[in-house]
Amino acid sequence: MTSKAIDPSVAGEVAGIGLVQELVMEFDQALKLTSGKELSGFRLAYETYGHLNAEKSNAVLICHALNASHHVAGRRADNPEDIGWWDNMVGPGKPVDTNVFFVIGVNNLGSCFGSTGPTSLNPATGEPYGGDFPVVTVEDWVQAQAHLADALGIERFAVVMGGSLGGMQAMQWAISYPKRIAHAVVIASTPRLSAQNIAFNEVARRAIITDPDFCGGHFYKENKIPKRGLAVARMIGHITYLSDDDMAQKFGRSLRQRQDYSYDFGVDFEIESYLRYQGEKFSSYFDANSYLLITKALDYFDPSQKTQGNLAQAFASVESEFLVVSFSTDWRFPPERSHEIVTALMQTNRRVVYAEVDAPHGHDAFLMDDPKYHGLIRSYFQRVAHELR
Amino acid sequence: MTSKAIDPSVAGEVAGIGLVQELVMEFDQALKLTSGKELSGFRLAYETYGHLNAEKSNAVLICHALNASHHVAGRRADNPEDIGWWDNMVGPGKPVDTNVFFVIGVNNLGSCFGSTGPTSLNPATGEPYGGDFPVVTVEDWVQAQAHLADALGIERFAVVMGGSLGGMQAMQWAISYPKRIAHAVVIASTPRLSAQNIAFNEVARRAIITDPDFCGGHFYKENKIPKRGLAVARMIGHITYLSDDDMAQKFGRSLRQRQDYSYDFGVDFEIESYLRYQGEKFSSYFDANSYLLITKALDYFDPSQKTQGNLAQAFASVESEFLVVSFSTDWRFPPERSHEIVTALMQTNRRVVYAEVDAPHGHDAFLMDDPKYHGLIRSYFQRVAHELR
Repeated sequence: MTSKAIDPSVAGEVAGIGLVQELVMEFDQALKLTSGKELSGFRLAYETYGHLNAEKSNAVLICHALNASHHVAGRRADNPEDIGWWDNMVGPGKPVDTNVFFVIGVNNLGSCFGSTGPTSLNPATGEPYGGDFPVVTVEDWVQAQAHLADALGIERFAVVMGGSLGGMQAMQWAISYPKRIAHAVVIASTPRLSAQNIAFNEVARRAIITDPDFCGGHFYKENKIPKRGLAVARMIGHITYLSDDDMAQKFGRSLRQRQDYSYDFGVDFEIESYLRYQGEKFSSYFDANSYLLITKALDYFDPSQKTQGNLAQAFASVESEFLVVSFSTDWRFPPERSHEIVTALMQTNRRVVYAEVDAPHGHDAFLMDDPKYHGLIRSYFQRVAHELR
Repeated sequence: MTSKAIDPSVAGEVAGIGLVQELVMEFDQALKLTSGKELSGFRLAYETYGHLNAEKSNAVLICHALNASHHVAGRRADNPEDIGWWDNMVGPGKPVDTNVFFVIGVNNLGSCFGSTGPTSLNPATGEPYGGDFPVVTVEDWVQAQAHLADALGIERFAVVMGGSLGGMQAMQWAISYPKRIAHAVVIASTPRLSAQNIAFNEVARRAIITDPDFCGGHFYKENKIPKRGLAVARMIGHITYLSDDDMAQKFGRSLRQRQDYSYDFGVDFEIESYLRYQGEKFSSYFDANSYLLITKALDYFDPSQKTQGNLAQAFASVESEFLVVSFSTDWRFPPERSHEIVTALMQTNRRVVYAEVDAPHGHDAFLMDDPKYHGLIRSYFQRVAHELR
């Protein structure tokens, strides 16, 4: 294995948490995937914040959800406008305190922000993988993240943490590598998607796949981008991230820069303008093949699949402690889904702290700067910090 | 005005409610629309069941929702496989008893089942209206329905009834023609769409409008159909018609004719297969322009718009009594939205009966054959029947 990264204990941070540098780790060994296929080699883009202590006991892995990346906190050195997606959570003096912890953000395989994915060159053809990139699973991501941990000399994470799909990765870490994770922090997540969750993903995928510019996933060489499909997919997703009440409060039936209805199919309501903008913006930077791959990883995640639906049994090998957090208005992964995780962990006699945060922002609440929520995470990490001593 | 229909008191019914004949009423007068535009003439497709009594006091108007038509009950004489969409509700001895009531189903303007709509010839061009068909509103539909009532000699309806968008028409009848409606039966409806409701409609419209085969609404003359967009639109709609629980119960995470995941983007789960089928089927018979028009009519409906958001004031002129029904698992138009209607009617001192039916089927429950629900409708119509005597 080749490790091209500079010393991780100092890399990734310039001027406090301010400017951060993207790092890349290249792996020349094959990665066998859940599907049976394999990647002959792969690369992972990542960032780090804070310093790894001498005992290498203070490492925290932050796993991202659908559309985020390894750029968790700080400003990118090459683009200071680009602030990390969880910058309110991670930094000096923040709930995940980089004065205490060495935090790693990593871009997952199949995504489009620097790790091996559909836009990477397929060594078999010398052209981008496109639609030929193999389907990857949460297990595959976690396996790849473990290789990164090896390369960085981290035997055991103090915490693996994530929201939504990121929370699934934290759960999978506890299952796949019970000795290598002390705490799993699982926020706004679910032990498996419901039929309704899968349904929304499937509609989004159909919007992309049936866009004529998708070209069966090989749109790069046609110099096309299935922007229409991607925009629709994002609009659908976005509706599920917000609560009904929050949307009513923010947009209601307010008209967009007009006094009366237009009586055409332009923009009448603020909510229409907002969604169109979100769709357009997303389709300008996100890769369509990555969207398909990541939604499929969401659909496939189900630790209880191998234990006949028995989640407690799926957690049988788990040794880590858990913090599980849900949000009252999250209708994508509502509190009941977190209860399933908590119940299964209790049945397995694992230590678990659970909190349901009363927040108006729906699923997106996990990204928000809510004092109750952040206070909770801060307390939990303070407890973890005490264990380090 | 020209009325080409045969005697409505016997038309539309052959062999009991068994076979029914589609009727068409042509109107040669102009219809001024809410938008300020007008239709120089129009036609309405309709069906009737039962017999109009001598006093013409037993007429019931059934208003349809997004994708339904005037074919409410019975089997079409020209296609006996085609059973009306509310056949479980309307017929001899059924909750809306055609032995007692004379029931009319009418296709709305802008729809695609025989009434004037986007596929009709635009007299100004001699070609189908396509994207040039004017935006129509619930008020416009009700106005057109009133012309049909005039033509059929019905001064006052015993009941105007509908579910979802159909319920909006019943409300609008009570507002627009307070003297012409004795009872409004409003099922699984809302006094106005929420931001989330509008959001789902907007995504569906974007899927259609951005389909290259939509051709700005003039796809007929290009010999194209925006099937991809229509299918995606229908899939989105369908998710909102079913409850999360019902979907979990019916489909859960069951795989479709396979033991393990496919690790590709074909069909893995039953719910995917079901939604794709619904999308395909819908796109083979429904008109894309009609879909746009009808979702816009939904978005625009808001009786309180003219009364600064005060719904009670919007109901000030109402004279009819109301039956309002909601379903416990309907998350498209949840019971709270019916409460708003009931509260406003009570503030206006109108007589209103309200029932929330505990049913698992989400919004679609209004179409289902549920004994509690049907018992309720039956009782209400029996009371109305007593008033006829």
